[in-house]
Amino acid sequence: MAKPRLMTPGPTQVSERGLLTLARQVTHHRTPEFRALLAEVLEGLKYVFATEHDVLLLTCSGTGAMEAAVVNLVARGGKAIVLESGKFSQRWRVLCEAFGIEVIRHEVPWGAPFQADDVARLLRKHPDAVAVYTTLQETSTGVGHDIEAIGRVVGPSDALLVVDGISGVGAMECRTDQWGIDVLVVGSQKALMTPPGLAFLAVSPAAWRQIEAIERPAFYFDLLAYRQALAGPDTPFTPAISLVAALAESLRAIRAEGIERVWARAKLLGRAIRAGMDALGLQLVADRPADGMTAVYVPEGLDGRAFLRRLEARFGVKLAGGQGPLAGKVFRIAQMGILDELDVLSAVAAIELALAEMGQKVNLGLGVGAASRVFAQAANGEVPNTGGK
Amino acid sequence: MAKPRLMTPGPTQVSERGLLTLARQVTHHRTPEFRALLAEVLEGLKYVFATEHDVLLLTCSGTGAMEAAVVNLVARGGKAIVLESGKFSQRWRVLCEAFGIEVIRHEVPWGAPFQADDVARLLRKHPDAVAVYTTLQETSTGVGHDIEAIGRVVGPSDALLVVDGISGVGAMECRTDQWGIDVLVVGSQKALMTPPGLAFLAVSPAAWRQIEAIERPAFYFDLLAYRQALAGPDTPFTPAISLVAALAESLRAIRAEGIERVWARAKLLGRAIRAGMDALGLQLVADRPADGMTAVYVPEGLDGRAFLRRLEARFGVKLAGGQGPLAGKVFRIAQMGILDELDVLSAVAAIELALAEMGQKVNLGLGVGAASRVFAQAANGEVPNTGGK
Repeated sequence: MAKPRLMTPGPTQVSERGLLTLARQVTHHRTPEFRALLAEVLEGLKYVFATEHDVLLLTCSGTGAMEAAVVNLVARGGKAIVLESGKFSQRWRVLCEAFGIEVIRHEVPWGAPFQADDVARLLRKHPDAVAVYTTLQETSTGVGHDIEAIGRVVGPSDALLVVDGISGVGAMECRTDQWGIDVLVVGSQKALMTPPGLAFLAVSPAAWRQIEAIERPAFYFDLLAYRQALAGPDTPFTPAISLVAALAESLRAIRAEGIERVWARAKLLGRAIRAGMDALGLQLVADRPADGMTAVYVPEGLDGRAFLRRLEARFGVKLAGGQGPLAGKVFRIAQMGILDELDVLSAVAAIELALAEMGQKVNLGLGVGAASRVFAQAANGEVPNTGGK
Repeated sequence: MAKPRLMTPGPTQVSERGLLTLARQVTHHRTPEFRALLAEVLEGLKYVFATEHDVLLLTCSGTGAMEAAVVNLVARGGKAIVLESGKFSQRWRVLCEAFGIEVIRHEVPWGAPFQADDVARLLRKHPDAVAVYTTLQETSTGVGHDIEAIGRVVGPSDALLVVDGISGVGAMECRTDQWGIDVLVVGSQKALMTPPGLAFLAVSPAAWRQIEAIERPAFYFDLLAYRQALAGPDTPFTPAISLVAALAESLRAIRAEGIERVWARAKLLGRAIRAGMDALGLQLVADRPADGMTAVYVPEGLDGRAFLRRLEARFGVKLAGGQGPLAGKVFRIAQMGILDELDVLSAVAAIELALAEMGQKVNLGLGVGAASRVFAQAANGEVPNTGGK
């Protein structure tokens, strides 16, 4: 009977408007009406991605679009620099290796951010690298990487900058064109508040030149086919029509609020969560926290899986667990999409109660109070603490 | 203000139950609840496909699953026999060529069915062919191919039989195991009455042996990853969760009616449509009609596109037009999914009126009467005419 409160960093909750759109009868996609809808969606995505570049819509999970960003850019035997620090940045490497690309692997510990200086050094050492693959918001650790700084060092090089923004874009500031991102990959089911099944790519003119220059082992993911279809606009293959219609609703809502306000809201919610966790004595995984989600260590000696089960069974609060080396050790909570201040306070309260009920020493209300103070300060216009933890 | 009546051969109408399921809040996919739902869906798909083989669920359009059926089975430089007779069977060839596969192309005119004897001859001439790629219901022409007969000649050979059942399966009889189909490809948005975005593959043990034996240029479409995830059951990448939930509703409805009855219903609707068109003096494209849809030539001298626009504007009846060489010359109408007798009679009535209003000589009611007689005969238990046109 627990009321479901989905707060995982993907999928995220869909708005009522989005859900009602999904309940509308499916329409045909080779029609002027669908082309108009798709045109609106592509414009909306450009707005959210802060880009004037081409934006392409694919029907697949985020991984499918990551594959497209690999096979269309780097030919078999070509070289790519992969920045790795978590399960999702790892996927870039696995993908590159699956397609016979020579990977220059730059690994930093899970929870640590990439340093632009390291990237500059790698680029000097590997001037023949075709692309640098990196991540905006690493969903396995909650790290927000400094793509702006990385963009500044990749910009002057011959390499293309490819960013997995699947979970970050729409929550965390991401200025695609200004920061020199050549290919941005985004998914529907995170900050864009749409069920999974759609993924998007923003492609710069420099990336298109590279895409035109190479042969690719791709048909469904051949980006030239998607570019050709943009004239309609259209998609080369049948798109997930209902999801496109729901996405249009999300994009309207983001436009109405304004993307900078949406970024600021996610950042504020994140600060409140971190303040709450800090007050409860819990440790964060990320040294440089992302804006769209937070990963938190469960207290030593507590079974992380049992903790998540209790949160869900008692309060309907659905958080995500840890992945890879963090399995059973952390919980991950979203602060993006339609989640708001009271959702965050509810979640912090639920975390307090679950910890107490599982025998942890908790001063009930301490976390909620600390999180609330962040909101009160923001409402009073006090200068927000934009720092790390 | 016209009431929408979607009757295209994909996407097809989604039931009210399916639509309301889509309107439910999205749930997380790495949960026991979703695994139970996925298990139910995979069992339901096996029932509809008449197979005990593994069934895999992919988030992509039908073309994505076709790509999976190509890159996982035939290595670059390998040989495949492709039976081609329409836009969608053509896609098999284009896909094979895109991945460097040597194509033995067997082309028959659009509208004609493949002959098993020809396939037997090709297999004798090319004993090294790894697979035969063919189509159950060719959506561009409305031909239903005799997969049972083709299966009988492919069976004794070393080649695998791969069937595009994207639009046919669930409308047209298809006994995957009994007919010796090694890989069956199906889409969500046709007879399975679910919005587009999901595709499925049934994979025989012989096909798995081949898949294990070769290297593939695939990651998102690497079928070994999907097989590994079946243990959950799970999907290797985030699935289109909402569509899976809606699909479960469709599969429950099909099970409740019984697949043989569903096949019989589509066949009956098809016979009625053909009788109606025949009474109106219109010609069919298909020499061997499919059970799930019908393609009909517009009368000589009539603009097919204008005819379709009028049908939609006047009556909300949305049919599909022609593709490739048939563009502007035909209309295509679905007789699958939740469409029923009155939907078919309405559509025939709309076709009569639109023809009359566009200056064609039409005896109003003649087509509807002929179609109705088919239904009356079936209701009276008179032996149905199972013949061609």
